[in-house]
Amino acid sequence: MPNVSANKESGVLTLLDYAGVVVFAAAGALAASRKQLDIIGFLFFSAVTGVGGGTLRDLILGRLPVFWVKEPIYILVCVATGILVFFTAHFVEWRYKLLLWLDAIGLAAYSVMGALIGLETTGSPIIAIVTGMLTATCGGVLRDILADEPSVLLRPEIYITAALAGASAFVLCHAQGVPLYLSAAVGFAAAFALRGGAL
Amino acid sequence: MPNVSANKESGVLTLLDYAGVVVFAAAGALAASRKQLDIIGFLFFSAVTGVGGGTLRDLILGRLPVFWVKEPIYILVCVATGILVFFTAHFVEWRYKLLLWLDAIGLAAYSVMGALIGLETTGSPIIAIVTGMLTATCGGVLRDILADEPSVLLRPEIYITAALAGASAFVLCHAQGVPLYLSAAVGFAAAFALRGGAL
Amino acid sequence: MPNVSANKESGVLTLLDYAGVVVFAAAGALAASRKQLDIIGFLFFSAVTGVGGGTLRDLILGRLPVFWVKEPIYILVCVATGILVFFTAHFVEWRYKLLLWLDAIGLAAYSVMGALIGLETTGSPIIAIVTGMLTATCGGVLRDILADEPSVLLRPEIYITAALAGASAFVLCHAQGVPLYLSAAVGFAAAFALRGGAL
Repeated sequence: MPNVSANKESGVLTLLDYAGVVVFAAAGALAASRKQLDIIGFLFFSAVTGVGGGTLRDLILGRLPVFWVKEPIYILVCVATGILVFFTAHFVEWRYKLLLWLDAIGLAAYSVMGALIGLETTGSPIIAIVTGMLTATCGGVLRDILADEPSVLLRPEIYITAALAGASAFVLCHAQGVPLYLSAAVGFAAAFALRGGAL
Repeated sequence: MPNVSANKESGVLTLLDYAGVVVFAAAGALAASRKQLDIIGFLFFSAVTGVGGGTLRDLILGRLPVFWVKEPIYILVCVATGILVFFTAHFVEWRYKLLLWLDAIGLAAYSVMGALIGLETTGSPIIAIVTGMLTATCGGVLRDILADEPSVLLRPEIYITAALAGASAFVLCHAQGVPLYLSAAVGFAAAFALRGGAL
Repeated sequence: MPNVSANKESGVLTLLDYAGVVVFAAAGALAASRKQLDIIGFLFFSAVTGVGGGTLRDLILGRLPVFWVKEPIYILVCVATGILVFFTAHFVEWRYKLLLWLDAIGLAAYSVMGALIGLETTGSPIIAIVTGMLTATCGGVLRDILADEPSVLLRPEIYITAALAGASAFVLCHAQGVPLYLSAAVGFAAAFALRGGAL
């Protein structure tokens, strides 16, 4: 029953992919909320944070046009997330912790998705680990630079290390013949445990 | 007489394109002036601000090499603008308003040009609006980041919204069958009125 | 004996290329040291600073995937450099001058390599000078932005000018028929003398 397996794998990966976009978009919108921007500012920060890491990944790998140009649904997901956060921000805003936890989920999801796409495109485990790290960290870094906040890279917290752990765990499991969706789950868990534990 | 129409359209669009480069280059040079950089610093900020937005647009759409590599005249236009501003900066510098008005013209011109090129490349109105916004705002954002100034994104002014309005108005008119140069004029006017009104 | 010449040229250029990566990676690691980051932070800053300029160059020229995806050895060189600096930083850290001198060597090496690759890809001397400047300056600019330090662009020092001088000297010599390795040496010397003299 290979189809079942394929569907399960595909389902896990699609879930990871959209989870990454949605939680990063929400974290971006919360940053816009902290800066008291208008709704268009919310949508801009949602989109930049939501698709920023994957955009850099696609540029570096030469997968052009970038993924959200091929599938504009990603932009619509960011816009919908931004609108949702805009109208609930009075409820959410004081929970800065929420931004950090959403960011942790996005970091874990993207460290795996970035590594997977790097591996599919180049076949090189080294490049896969690098693209995993880049995809996972760049959305948050871009958000911090645009919001004129101290970069998350410089805080005394486990951030890049968590992305490295997630990407490396995924690549190692995959190289050992572990099924794709299980490798993805191990990578996600490794990154999330490290990052979440540091919050 | 389709040639007449084609010439008129082409003329309007070429005008918009060079207007965007020149005014953004001048705004970049004025930022260099405020930072008291030397002439090479002026040229660097002219070029980054003048072609930065269009460069990101081309990267994302996969139109490589980017436009100014194909047509180096754009770089020469930025250099000429930077030199002109360098030698007149003592006259212009105290007029910070001038930088903002130049930026408003560039924003309006690029919101239309970015949307047009996004539409031509992908056929998707959503992507056209996004590339219009990106092209219009990224030159100024890059300039602010490199000049270590608070990003224009965070000021309580209509900035991204004006870019969104210009790109959307252009895409909507174009979808309704309005002639290209008229759609471009409507988009330009929408963005410029909103941004100019906020100054 | 064209092979001898080819080997000599190739040797000089390979040397310049790796020299640029190693010294920029070391300068990036020293920046991480000043920010008291952990070892993964060192490696991240090593890699971003070491390959950042060349990455932007490849993106703009459409040479995709970028060079270090094709040859992951560049990433390993950055990682090795970052580890070396991490374990010797207690010895090196108080020598901020060292960072500046390493940066000057990298600037000189990359102004030539960036111009050479721009020339090979496009045939345009103007574009070659621009890609030389971009390649030479962007690693350091990225490092400063990510480390939340005032950009080297804004310091009252000869920086962009040195990159311009190196790229221009190389392109001019090459256009006059000067052998490649000699043109490269002249360009390197021009950039290094200007930048080093300003320290």
